[in-house]
Parts: sequence; structure tokens; C-alpha cells
Amino acid sequence: MEIFFAPEAMPDAETIIFGGNTARHISRVMRHRPGDVVKATDGRGTEFELKLTAVGVSRVEGRVLGRRMRPTEPRHKVALAQALLKGRGLAQVVETATELGVSEVIPFLSERTVAKMSAVRRSRLQHVAVSGLETSMRTVLPCIADCVSFEGLLGRMTEFDMTVVAYEGECRFGIDDVLDKDVRSVLAVVGPEGGFSELEIDRLKVTGAKVFSLGPRRLRAATAASTVVALCLQRLGDLG
Amino acid sequence: MEIFFAPEAMPDAETIIFGGNTARHISRVMRHRPGDVVKATDGRGTEFELKLTAVGVSRVEGRVLGRRMRPTEPRHKVALAQALLKGRGLAQVVETATELGVSEVIPFLSERTVAKMSAVRRSRLQHVAVSGLETSMRTVLPCIADCVSFEGLLGRMTEFDMTVVAYEGECRFGIDDVLDKDVRSVLAVVGPEGGFSELEIDRLKVTGAKVFSLGPRRLRAATAASTVVALCLQRLGDLG
Repeated sequence: MEIFFAPEAMPDAETIIFGGNTARHISRVMRHRPGDVVKATDGRGTEFELKLTAVGVSRVEGRVLGRRMRPTEPRHKVALAQALLKGRGLAQVVETATELGVSEVIPFLSERTVAKMSAVRRSRLQHVAVSGLETSMRTVLPCIADCVSFEGLLGRMTEFDMTVVAYEGECRFGIDDVLDKDVRSVLAVVGPEGGFSELEIDRLKVTGAKVFSLGPRRLRAATAASTVVALCLQRLGDLG
Repeated sequence: MEIFFAPEAMPDAETIIFGGNTARHISRVMRHRPGDVVKATDGRGTEFELKLTAVGVSRVEGRVLGRRMRPTEPRHKVALAQALLKGRGLAQVVETATELGVSEVIPFLSERTVAKMSAVRRSRLQHVAVSGLETSMRTVLPCIADCVSFEGLLGRMTEFDMTVVAYEGECRFGIDDVLDKDVRSVLAVVGPEGGFSELEIDRLKVTGAKVFSLGPRRLRAATAASTVVALCLQRLGDLG
């Protein structure tokens, strides 16, 4: 069971049509047949229940039986700001964070960032988010933001009730000490493999961010990112 | 910075010798030179501080400057029982769970398990655990247990103060509702991609396991495993 992404579906659609890779996936990989009941989402909050009426390799059509709004979405907005990572790292972060329930992933540059962000890479990451949405049955597609500078990251903090930063140099506070349970939105920040510089941490703190520790073991950035997202959602009551 | 695994070092060793891949890694990849100060562990709780005295591609020697016991280990024993997964899934779980701080990974078979476990695969997973230990600076190498049957899994529950099971069919309880804060050891159980059968969940419950939900979004098994380990360690105060 998964949910199929139909970005062009209108919320009041009576019929939904899939083309391209999604049609191929439904017909060839999932081997659905006319009459099968499946789920689809516009990625903007609507979940459709569909009865498939025509199944071809390049075109699949379904009739809408019912719709629900955001049945599996977290109530809180948790965005992940992740310093660029080399290789497959960032894609792994986007996939896991999407499944867990982030609203947005914001890649950013920092002093010790070695990777680069191209338009192609961003579009690939957006595809990874679609795949995460489909397997996790979500109905809101997380946005993969343009890569921002460290300044740009500080600038985006005002959009959230709170910003929390995982930092290996912190040893007094855990997530429960810094994240208020009653915020509606939180920006969770995870640095590059080499960590943040002290200057960067100072600037985050001066701008209002709260710094916390994930414990004495050193985590790869991808592990830190999924852990931070899980802990934020758990703290806010959005993870079971 | 990482910690090098020296499984044959005695706790009171004055000199530590690395061979094979570790010697190559220290000399060629990390490019250490005589005089460099590095860390090593026996994987049984001792952290050594070493000054390298000889660095060759197949043999590296260091003099012990000091030792500490379990500086980065969790105070609680959290073991992960993971149903076998296909492909790279289980290796990914072992790596992440090791970094986060598990004491042991117990692969097991279940009704909907499709993968198999060979001796070669187990030895590969033990290598993955070594790599997780080295990057996370841990001093206790998690054991990769022999793959057990579902019966075998139930049998192992008695070794732990508590067993918790992530189950998508549960919707009332989260981890904080089921995991007592004052246990010293917990067995966390995560099913295969296809989930547990109702019969399996009933048998786990009858044997004393507590079942909890990770929320309405459906997580891949690898994401569920790392999330469950993180939430257990967080709940017990071992994650920052």
C-alpha cells in the first residue's frame, strides 16, 4: 500500500489522471488493474480514495470515491535545516525526514561545508521527497528549499516559533530542556560532517536559537538529522 | 577524529599494535605519523589514548598514555531486535543503531520476512558495527547476534527489564506511555517491511511486550529502527 502523487489534481476533482513514471509505477510495478481501489494525494493536503477505471503503461485514470484532509500529517510544523552533505548523504536525509513528517528541508552552506548544490541536485532531492511522501502515505509534499547561505539561514529563523540546533560542543542541555512543548513551529538545524564552528554557534545563539546535545557519541550528519527530526516530533506529540 | 578498534588489546596494555585494514586505515587514509596522539578501544569498554611510535601500512604501534572506562557509553542497555530486511537495509540499521548506542542487534525471522541470513552476512554486519563504533567514538562493540526464530525472540525477552514493540496497528500509545523511565535494560523490537501479523503481536503481548505507535505516517523499517532506538535512549536519559 502506498499513496500516489498527483500534483495536478484539484481538491474537488472527480477524476484523477496519472501519466509518466507514476502511471508506469502503478501499472507495471504495483500491477494494479481496473477496479482496484488506491490512494492518491495532491501533495497539498488532500488524500483521495480512487477506483481505477483505466490502467495503461503511460496513462492511468481513476474515479474519486472520497477525500480526506491531512489524515497523516503532523499538527506541528517541523522544518529541517541541513548543511550540505557530500554524496548520497543529503538524499538520505530528505527521504528519512520526509517519512518522519518534516514540512520543509532547507539546505545551507556553512564554514565547514564541502559539498555544492546545483539545480539538478535540488530537483533530484525533490524527487526523493516525492518517493518519501508516497511510501509514508503523507499528503503534504515537503518543500526542498533553495540552498541558502549561513546568513540566509539566520534570516529564515523569524518564520518559526523556535529554532533548535544540535551541537556536539553542548553538554548541559538535551532536546527536552530547550524545546517548548507549546510551540506550533520549529526549525531544527543540523550542521555538516565537520560540525559548526564556534563563531557559527555564537551567531545562531545571538539570533535566538537554542543549542542542545545528542549525547556523547558522535553521529554522522544523516543520523543526527533523522534523530533530531524524530525527537522534535516526539516532543511535540506528533510521533504516536 | 575517530577511535580505532583494537580487539586484542588487554585493558592494562602498555603498547597497542594494529594490523590489517586498521593499520592501512591509520597510515594511508588518516595519514597519521609517529608522534600523533589517537584513540583506540578494545570494544569491551576501555578507551586508550595512544602516542603512535611506528606507522607502517601493515603495522602501526602506539604507546598507551592513558585509559578511561566507557566515556561515551549509554548507562542503559538498549538492544534492537530487527526482523531481517532485504538488501542494504539491515546494514544501514546496524550502522545507525551502533552510532546511537545499542548494546546488541538481534536479527529475527517473522511471518512476513522475505530475506535470509547467512554466516557471511552476519560477519559483514559485524564489520559494519565496527565501523559504526569507530566513527561514533564508542568503546563497546555491539554484538550482532545469530539470527533467531520468532520463538527465539520471545525467549530472549526475559533477559531485559522490558520489551517494547513498534506496531503500526497501535494507535493509543506512544513510547512515553509504555516505556518506564526506571528500567535498566530494554529490548526494542521492529518488524519487517510488511509489518507483524496480528498473531505475532498477540504473542508478543502475551509474553509481556508493550506495543506502541510511531504515529500515522508509515516508516520504512530502517527509519523505524533508528527512530525507535533514538526514542528509547532519549526516554532513558541517554541521548543528551
